[in-house]
Amino acid sequence: MTALNTTTDELVERLRAGEPRALARAITLIENGEEEGSALVGAIFADTGAARVIGFTGPPGVGKSTLIGALTKQLRETDQTVGVLSVDPSSPFTHGALLGDRIRLAEHFLDPGVFIRSMASRGALGGMAEAALQAALVMDAAGRDYVLLETVGVGQAEIDVIDHADTVVLALMPGSGDSIQALKAGVMEIPDVIVVNKSDHPLTDTMIREVKTALALSPDRGWRIPVLRTEASRGEGVTELREAIEAHRAHIEAEGTLAERRARNLRAEVIGIATARLRRQLEAQALADGEIEQLLDRVVRREIDPARAARELLEKRAQ
Amino acid sequence: MTALNTTTDELVERLRAGEPRALARAITLIENGEEEGSALVGAIFADTGAARVIGFTGPPGVGKSTLIGALTKQLRETDQTVGVLSVDPSSPFTHGALLGDRIRLAEHFLDPGVFIRSMASRGALGGMAEAALQAALVMDAAGRDYVLLETVGVGQAEIDVIDHADTVVLALMPGSGDSIQALKAGVMEIPDVIVVNKSDHPLTDTMIREVKTALALSPDRGWRIPVLRTEASRGEGVTELREAIEAHRAHIEAEGTLAERRARNLRAEVIGIATARLRRQLEAQALADGEIEQLLDRVVRREIDPARAARELLEKRAQ
Repeated sequence: MTALNTTTDELVERLRAGEPRALARAITLIENGEEEGSALVGAIFADTGAARVIGFTGPPGVGKSTLIGALTKQLRETDQTVGVLSVDPSSPFTHGALLGDRIRLAEHFLDPGVFIRSMASRGALGGMAEAALQAALVMDAAGRDYVLLETVGVGQAEIDVIDHADTVVLALMPGSGDSIQALKAGVMEIPDVIVVNKSDHPLTDTMIREVKTALALSPDRGWRIPVLRTEASRGEGVTELREAIEAHRAHIEAEGTLAERRARNLRAEVIGIATARLRRQLEAQALADGEIEQLLDRVVRREIDPARAARELLEKRAQ
Repeated sequence: MTALNTTTDELVERLRAGEPRALARAITLIENGEEEGSALVGAIFADTGAARVIGFTGPPGVGKSTLIGALTKQLRETDQTVGVLSVDPSSPFTHGALLGDRIRLAEHFLDPGVFIRSMASRGALGGMAEAALQAALVMDAAGRDYVLLETVGVGQAEIDVIDHADTVVLALMPGSGDSIQALKAGVMEIPDVIVVNKSDHPLTDTMIREVKTALALSPDRGWRIPVLRTEASRGEGVTELREAIEAHRAHIEAEGTLAERRARNLRAEVIGIATARLRRQLEAQALADGEIEQLLDRVVRREIDPARAARELLEKRAQ
C-alpha cells in the first residue's frame, strides 16, 4: 500500500469531518479518473457502511428527481444529512436544468446538509458506473445519513449502480405500460418498494391495480412489496414513502439479509469493475495492437468467426 | 485449426444444403455449449453474410412475435426463406405457448421454408447472447434469405443480439409511454424503423405523434426513420413494414454503410464475447480459488475497497 501524500491526507480528514467542499473535490478526482481519487476511496472505505443507500429507478419522465427532492425535504426535517447522486442522463439534475418549480431540490442548494451530484452516464458503461459507486462510497464516508441514487432502469450492465442500494424504489406513473409489462413478463428485476407518482392522473387507480397484478405473479420473497401513490411535486405520499423505506430497512436488518445483500453487492461490484476494466483493456488493445487489428479484420472478411477470434484474442493476452 | 470429424463434416454439408433438421441439430450443439458447435460455426462462417438480418426490439406485450409472424407470411409469398430466433424471455415463442389465433407463426410450423427457434435469455448474459449470435450465423449459412431476431429492448449488455442486425425495427403500441420517454431522453438507441402495432387502439394517432416528436429531437443520420402503423394480427400494414425494411436496406447499401455497420458489429461481437468469457472466468475463479475468495471477503469486511480488489484480482490473473 502506498503512503498517501499530505494533500490526500488532508482531504481524507476534511471528508471525515463531512465538509461539503472536500466531498465535491473528492468526487471530481474520482470522476476524472485520477490516481488520487482511487487512493482516497481506499483510505476511506473502512469508514463506509453507515449510510442508508436508497436506489431510485424507473423510466425517464416519471419524476424520480422530484420524488428524491421531496424525500430529501422530509429527511432534512429530522436532521438527516443527504447525498444525492444522479446517474440518469435524462435527469434534470444531470442536465443542469434547474427550473424552480419543476425541481424541488433547488431549495436545498444552500443547505450544507444536502449534497447533490450528477454524472452523465451515456455511453461510458463501466467507467461511469465505477465512478458513481466510488462517489457513493465517499458520500457514505463523509457521514451522509442517506445516500440517494437516481438511475434510469436499463439494467444488465457490467456494473449496475442500483445494485449498490440497500433498498430499491421503482418509480412509475400512469402510462408506464412498458414497465408493467416488463414486471409481468419477469424481464425486470423486482424492486423493494414501488411508487406510482403523479397520482393526480385519472388512471392512477388502474395503474396501481396493474402493478399489484404484476407483483402477484412474482415469487414470494418474504417481503410484501408496498405499492404507494405519491404526488411528489406537492409532497403528497412522501411520508408513506419514507415509512416504507424504513420498514424495508427494518425487515432486512431483522432477517439478516441486509448484511447478506451488501456482501453479495460488494462481491458483484468487484467482479463487475474487473470485467469493465478488462473490456476497456481489450478495446484499447484492439486499437493499438496491429495483430489484434488484423485478427478483427479477418473476422470482417469472414475468415474466422467471432467466437474463435475472441478465443485467439484471449490466448494472445494470456501469453 | 483442428480437422473436423466426419459427423461435423456431414452436418456442415447438410447445413449448406439448407436442411431444417441439420439446422435444428446445429443450434442444439451451440446451445449446449459443445465443442462441435463451435467447430461448426468456424466451418460455416465463410458462408455467412448473404442473409438479411432484421432485429425486432421493443417492450414485452407489443406484439413483436405476431409482427414477425405476419412478416414471415409476406416473405413466404415471394418464396423467401426465413429463420426466426427469439431471445426474449417474455416472447410466446420462448414460452412455447403457441395459441393458434394469438400467434400467427403456428401456421408456419409445417413449412420447411420457416425455421423457428427460441432461447431463454434470463440471467445468462454473455453465454446466451453468444449462443444466439452463433445460431443466427448458422441460419445465415443454411441459406435463409431472412433471419429475424426478436429481443426485448433492455440494451447495455456485454453482447447485444440486436447489434447483429442490419436493420433494427422498434415495435411499440399505444401505452408504450416509457419507451417514448426513453427515446425523447436519448436513453434509448434510435432504431431504423418504428412500428406502432395494435393500431386499432383509439390512442394510436396520439402515439404516432409522440413518436415523431421524440424522433425530431434526435440527430439527423441521413435516413428518415419511418413510423408505421400495423395491426399485425390482421396482417394490416405489414406490406408497408416490409417495404420500409427493404428501403432501409437499399439506403445502407447505397451509402456503403451496410458493410461499415457489419464490420463494426462483428468487431463489437468479438470484444463482447471475449469480455463475457473473461467475466465467466472471473466468476468461476472467485468460487474455486481460495485466495480470490479471501480477497472478496476482505472487501465485505471493508478492509480493501472494491476497485482496489478488482485491481488485485486482475494482477493476480496476470501473474
